[in-house]
Amino acid sequence: MEENNENQEPENQDLLQDLSEKGKTAELVEMFEELPTMDVAEFMEERPIEEILQYLKKLDPEDQGRIFSDFSIDLQLKFFHSVDRRTFASVFGQMFSDIRADLYQELTKEEQIELLPYLDKKVREDVIILSAYPPETAGGTMTTDFATIFADMTASEALAKIRKDAPSKDMIYYIYVVDHSMVMKGLVTLKDLVMHDPKDKVLEMLNEFFVYAEVNEDRESVAQKIEKYDLVAIPVLNSLNQLVGIVSHEEAIDIIQKENTEDIEKLMGIMPSANDEEYMATSSFHHFKKRVVWLVSLAAIGIISGMIINEYQGVLEQFIILAMYMPMMAATGGNTGAQAATVVIRALSLGEINDEEWLKIVYKEMKISLMLSLCVALLTYLKIAFLSFHSMLPSGFSMEYVAIIISVAIAVQVVSSAVIGAALPLVVRRLGGDPAVVASPAITTIVDITGLLIYFTIASHTLGIS
Amino acid sequence: MEENNENQEPENQDLLQDLSEKGKTAELVEMFEELPTMDVAEFMEERPIEEILQYLKKLDPEDQGRIFSDFSIDLQLKFFHSVDRRTFASVFGQMFSDIRADLYQELTKEEQIELLPYLDKKVREDVIILSAYPPETAGGTMTTDFATIFADMTASEALAKIRKDAPSKDMIYYIYVVDHSMVMKGLVTLKDLVMHDPKDKVLEMLNEFFVYAEVNEDRESVAQKIEKYDLVAIPVLNSLNQLVGIVSHEEAIDIIQKENTEDIEKLMGIMPSANDEEYMATSSFHHFKKRVVWLVSLAAIGIISGMIINEYQGVLEQFIILAMYMPMMAATGGNTGAQAATVVIRALSLGEINDEEWLKIVYKEMKISLMLSLCVALLTYLKIAFLSFHSMLPSGFSMEYVAIIISVAIAVQVVSSAVIGAALPLVVRRLGGDPAVVASPAITTIVDITGLLIYFTIASHTLGIS
Repeated sequence: MEENNENQEPENQDLLQDLSEKGKTAELVEMFEELPTMDVAEFMEERPIEEILQYLKKLDPEDQGRIFSDFSIDLQLKFFHSVDRRTFASVFGQMFSDIRADLYQELTKEEQIELLPYLDKKVREDVIILSAYPPETAGGTMTTDFATIFADMTASEALAKIRKDAPSKDMIYYIYVVDHSMVMKGLVTLKDLVMHDPKDKVLEMLNEFFVYAEVNEDRESVAQKIEKYDLVAIPVLNSLNQLVGIVSHEEAIDIIQKENTEDIEKLMGIMPSANDEEYMATSSFHHFKKRVVWLVSLAAIGIISGMIINEYQGVLEQFIILAMYMPMMAATGGNTGAQAATVVIRALSLGEINDEEWLKIVYKEMKISLMLSLCVALLTYLKIAFLSFHSMLPSGFSMEYVAIIISVAIAVQVVSSAVIGAALPLVVRRLGGDPAVVASPAITTIVDITGLLIYFTIASHTLGIS
Repeated sequence: MEENNENQEPENQDLLQDLSEKGKTAELVEMFEELPTMDVAEFMEERPIEEILQYLKKLDPEDQGRIFSDFSIDLQLKFFHSVDRRTFASVFGQMFSDIRADLYQELTKEEQIELLPYLDKKVREDVIILSAYPPETAGGTMTTDFATIFADMTASEALAKIRKDAPSKDMIYYIYVVDHSMVMKGLVTLKDLVMHDPKDKVLEMLNEFFVYAEVNEDRESVAQKIEKYDLVAIPVLNSLNQLVGIVSHEEAIDIIQKENTEDIEKLMGIMPSANDEEYMATSSFHHFKKRVVWLVSLAAIGIISGMIINEYQGVLEQFIILAMYMPMMAATGGNTGAQAATVVIRALSLGEINDEEWLKIVYKEMKISLMLSLCVALLTYLKIAFLSFHSMLPSGFSMEYVAIIISVAIAVQVVSSAVIGAALPLVVRRLGGDPAVVASPAITTIVDITGLLIYFTIASHTLGIS
């Protein structure tokens, strides 16, 4: 989070900038072919659309597709609206199939229908099929750029087929072994083919026990498999075990980032959205809708705190010092509870702990919070000693005594908040829910209430009032 | 987060379990060679150490190394302590070099010195060199399992060298082109070598403008490059441009997960640790240390809220209804501020926004929070209408009037909290800091204070008291 990743490869940007300023277009286009496509895409993003079009025209179709795929979705759409349909269709046909399907889905129904006649039959079918899967599934995330061979081929026959089939834009590491109905039989790596004797049969090196995703599988589960098994890509099968696509490791990183954003949003009481909108691209009203439910619900529950204060009016009137330390009581409880909940939710999410260990976890949080409560209680006592010794008290009460009572109440609050914060996500997981829904604002609101009860119960009993 | 990823491939576990129960050891060992190593490692994790040892002995050294690399660090250490040094050294020598270096660093100095004489010279050097880099750098994360060729080779000579050099355990996709001093000249993919004519020179297909990491570069920056450029692996160069290792995509996922945990911890006011401890493996005292600083600091600042309440004692005594709605005021402000801060921090972290757009962002948050404030104010008014119409008020004041005042104060609090929550992370980023340090507990504490000031200022002015 510390780094701004704008300037990872500034030399490449400078190089392109320099050639462009000097008008060396031939060298510039040569560089477009040599440099990482992401750097070229970033350079072009800053140019006017006519200039981008000129550049793209000078590149071969494959490079056009690679670079255009790395453009932001906004620029891709702008390009669609700026050039004629035929020009667009030729670049579109060369894009990576998963990114192409994403772009297609951003078009309106009318635009889609307008574009379709200009596309090759193969591209048209590919786009329509990929767009049919819900975006949060393996099918909605996969690409159809993969290479297949048959099990009865020799290594050299297999390599010959790959040379023929595989356009150079694709990253090819796993080679999928299918039968003539595209039912997946296993996979080999390009390295297997290279290392074996050219006459060896594919069948002999076949990896039959491969990890795969089902086409309707949740994308988060797909990303977890890629992560767990350290895969470069995972094959996606339909219900007939036919190979319909692959999800690659870079998609897994995207998915993990999105899921992490969701978890963080849930933690803070923001409803995650089904689509993956960027901050600025999302309307204020949509942001509002994502936040309002939690906010209003918690404000509604917050009235309970007010009712408790109302109940103990008499105590507060006699010991106004209690009111002074009330916000600290609530805030410290909320912070302790949120810390405990966060740590437990994250550990559950990373699989470091499971809900069957709940007793051990709660016991551990109790130990941790006992130490925390000692520090906070000591601080509270010192604060009262330094700041409040001139406050008025009803006769018969010493400030030392009141200070000890407030400190003890805060210590009890710290321990109970940590236990509540740790236990609630575990309970939710146990009941089959997502522990992250016990968001930190919810915990804060709950320990506000329990805290006030602890505070006034201890105070009213020890001070002999009610 | 919804899914428990324990049972991704239950069939494989069942298969192994079944063979093991029926005592079919030969078939079991055959399956160990066929199944994904992670599944085999998970199966073995549940067995007694002697059984694991028996299984490993039946496998060839390469498979031993692959499977042992997928064991948890705990089991690896247990294995180290259970078998003789020579047996351990032979498995150790076959591990993936990055995981091996991590394991080596978990040993005590004495254990390291005891182990070293049993290792091959090559393994010994590799382990010592890799362990010398700080763990949060490219050097501390990289593996030395990579394949190199020379630029003047033909494609077929290059493939021959790869066949000779590359043990089958390694994932090989990029082939690094170096000179005889290991200075990196560029890279080709295995696919390039396969697709080209066998007589073509490597120089002709050489990719000279490659993305690389420096050996001392922060691992987060390395992961960002892998993510941005969709790399399977990134080469790591030292200051002499010599190729010293590679960091692969699976490490990038690990790093991203760790950094996300750090961000979440910071957001909740927990100091992230330099090492990456698991929840249960971390001592309670260490957990305590990670949480105590924020907790005590915020509790100390919290006294300001108490002082404000003290200041407005007179107002509270006359209008006890103000005390009833005070906790809701603080909690709602804290929640709004934390929501705004979270969204802005996450968007900054993902590069969706940058701090130069601060005015647009603050304006957007203002619009969002105006909508939120309308809802919250309405709720507040209704709550007062239903719950508090029997509260006592000084003569001359109507409850409708007081209800409107409290609702307006809460509305102002919501807007100001959102603006503070959004602006603070932007200010911190602008000053060159990490926006996540403006943790949600910090924001909550700040808006507690501003909220009380707003509340009492509005109330005392409109109610004509001080």
